[in-house]
Amino acid sequence: MSFAARILTLYPEMFPGPLGVSLAGRALAQGIWTCDPVQIRDFATDRHKSVDDTPAGGGAGMVMRADVLARAVDHALAAQPDAPLVAMTPRGEPLTQMLVREIAAGPGVTILCGRFEGIDERLFEARPIRQVSVGDYILSGGETAAIVLLDACIRLLPGVMGAASSGDEESFESGLLEYPHYTRPNEWEGRMIPQVLRSGDHAKIAAWRQAMAQDHTRSRRPDLWERHRDVRDQSPSDAQRKMKDKRT
Amino acid sequence: MSFAARILTLYPEMFPGPLGVSLAGRALAQGIWTCDPVQIRDFATDRHKSVDDTPAGGGAGMVMRADVLARAVDHALAAQPDAPLVAMTPRGEPLTQMLVREIAAGPGVTILCGRFEGIDERLFEARPIRQVSVGDYILSGGETAAIVLLDACIRLLPGVMGAASSGDEESFESGLLEYPHYTRPNEWEGRMIPQVLRSGDHAKIAAWRQAMAQDHTRSRRPDLWERHRDVRDQSPSDAQRKMKDKRT
Repeated sequence: MSFAARILTLYPEMFPGPLGVSLAGRALAQGIWTCDPVQIRDFATDRHKSVDDTPAGGGAGMVMRADVLARAVDHALAAQPDAPLVAMTPRGEPLTQMLVREIAAGPGVTILCGRFEGIDERLFEARPIRQVSVGDYILSGGETAAIVLLDACIRLLPGVMGAASSGDEESFESGLLEYPHYTRPNEWEGRMIPQVLRSGDHAKIAAWRQAMAQDHTRSRRPDLWERHRDVRDQSPSDAQRKMKDKRT
Repeated sequence: MSFAARILTLYPEMFPGPLGVSLAGRALAQGIWTCDPVQIRDFATDRHKSVDDTPAGGGAGMVMRADVLARAVDHALAAQPDAPLVAMTPRGEPLTQMLVREIAAGPGVTILCGRFEGIDERLFEARPIRQVSVGDYILSGGETAAIVLLDACIRLLPGVMGAASSGDEESFESGLLEYPHYTRPNEWEGRMIPQVLRSGDHAKIAAWRQAMAQDHTRSRRPDLWERHRDVRDQSPSDAQRKMKDKRT
C-alpha cells in the first residue's frame, strides 16, 4: 500500500516540487508514496470562485472561508477516511519527530495549506483537523510547510532509506541532538579527526559520542536538555538501559 | 538591489521549486530576489567527484567532506562576502521570526544544505557558518529547510507583500500566537461569527483579540507564554505601551 499524500492548496503546481527529486522522488516513482494535490478553488460555489473574504472585525488581508474549505476537507475525508487531517499553521502544535513517526506509520495524510491571514476558526471547531506548526516563523502559506512535513515522513517509509540508515541514532530520536560527525581526510587545514574516533575502540567511541551529544544539547538547546533530564529522572532504569544500548 | 539567495546543494534542480510560484515567484520575476543554486559536486577534486565518505569511528551512512564543502563555501564567500552564511541542520539554533527578519534585512544569504548523516564538524570550526534548524524533526536534506527559510525571508522583502499586510499583527511578532480569524458567511453550520467582531466597536475588538491571543498561547504553547511573561515582567512599561498600541 502506498502512503497517500493529499494536499489541499491554492497552488497545486507546487507539488511534488522538491519532493519529485532525490530520495522522495525515487520513492514517488516507485509508488512508495502518492502525491495528490487538490485545488481548493474547485470547491468554491460563486461565479468568482472566491475562497476568501475580509476579516470579521476589520484588519489587514483576507481570511479563508470555512464553507469552501469544509467542502474541500469533506471531499478529502470521503476519499481517505482513515488518514489524519492536518492543517499547517503557525498557531498549531509544534511538529516533532514523534509526530512525524506517527503520521509516517499510517496510511497517508491529508494536508490543508492555509494562505493569506489565516483560516476561519469555525472550520477547526467543526472538523477533526490537527493544527501543526513547523516552527516559530511565518511562511507565505502552508505549502512549503507541507513539503517539510512530507519530506520528514517519506524518508521513514519502508524501502526509502537503506537499511543501514534506520534513523535510530539521529537527532531527537534519543531526545538529544546528534553527536558531531567526521570523515576523511584525516587532517584538513591542520585540524585532525579526534583521536578517539581513530582508536578502533568501539566502546570508547560510543561513550565519546554520547558525551558529545549531551554536551551539544546542553549548550545549544537547554530546552531539549531539560526535557531529556526530566525523562531520565522519571525512569532511571530506562535511561540506564538506553545508555547501555548505545554503548554496545 | 536584489536579495541574493545562493544555495550550496547536491540538488540544484530543487530550486526555486515552490518559490517559483505565487508571492515568491512573482518577486523572483520582478528581480526583488535572485536564486542561484550552486552544485557542491563541482568543488570535488577526485575523478569520482566524491563529496562524502564513511564516518570516522564507524556507523551508518556517509558524512559530507570538510575539504570539498570548504571550497564551495569559499567560492560563495568570495562572490558575496557580506551575506550571512547559514547551514541547515537539526543541530543548529532554532529558526525564529527574529532571525528571519535579520536575514531579510540584509543583502542576501548563502545557504549550505547538508545531506546524508551530516557535515564534517571541522567545517564549522574553520568557517563563519551559522547553524540553523527549522524544527525538531529530521529531513532528507537541508534543501526543504532552505526553501522554508527563503520563503519566510522573501515575503518580508520590500514590495513583496501589500502595504496592508505588513505582518505586524502576525504570530510571534508580539511574542504571542495570533488571535483566531473569522470571515463571511456570518452563520455557517449553525456557528456564528463571535458577536464582538460584528459590534463595530474597535477598542472592544482589539481587546478581545489580545485576550484570545493570550488564551491560545497559554493553552497551546506554554513555552512561548512563559517567555512572553518573562519579557513583560522585565519591562512592565514597554509591555503596557505595547498593549495600549494594540488597543488603539
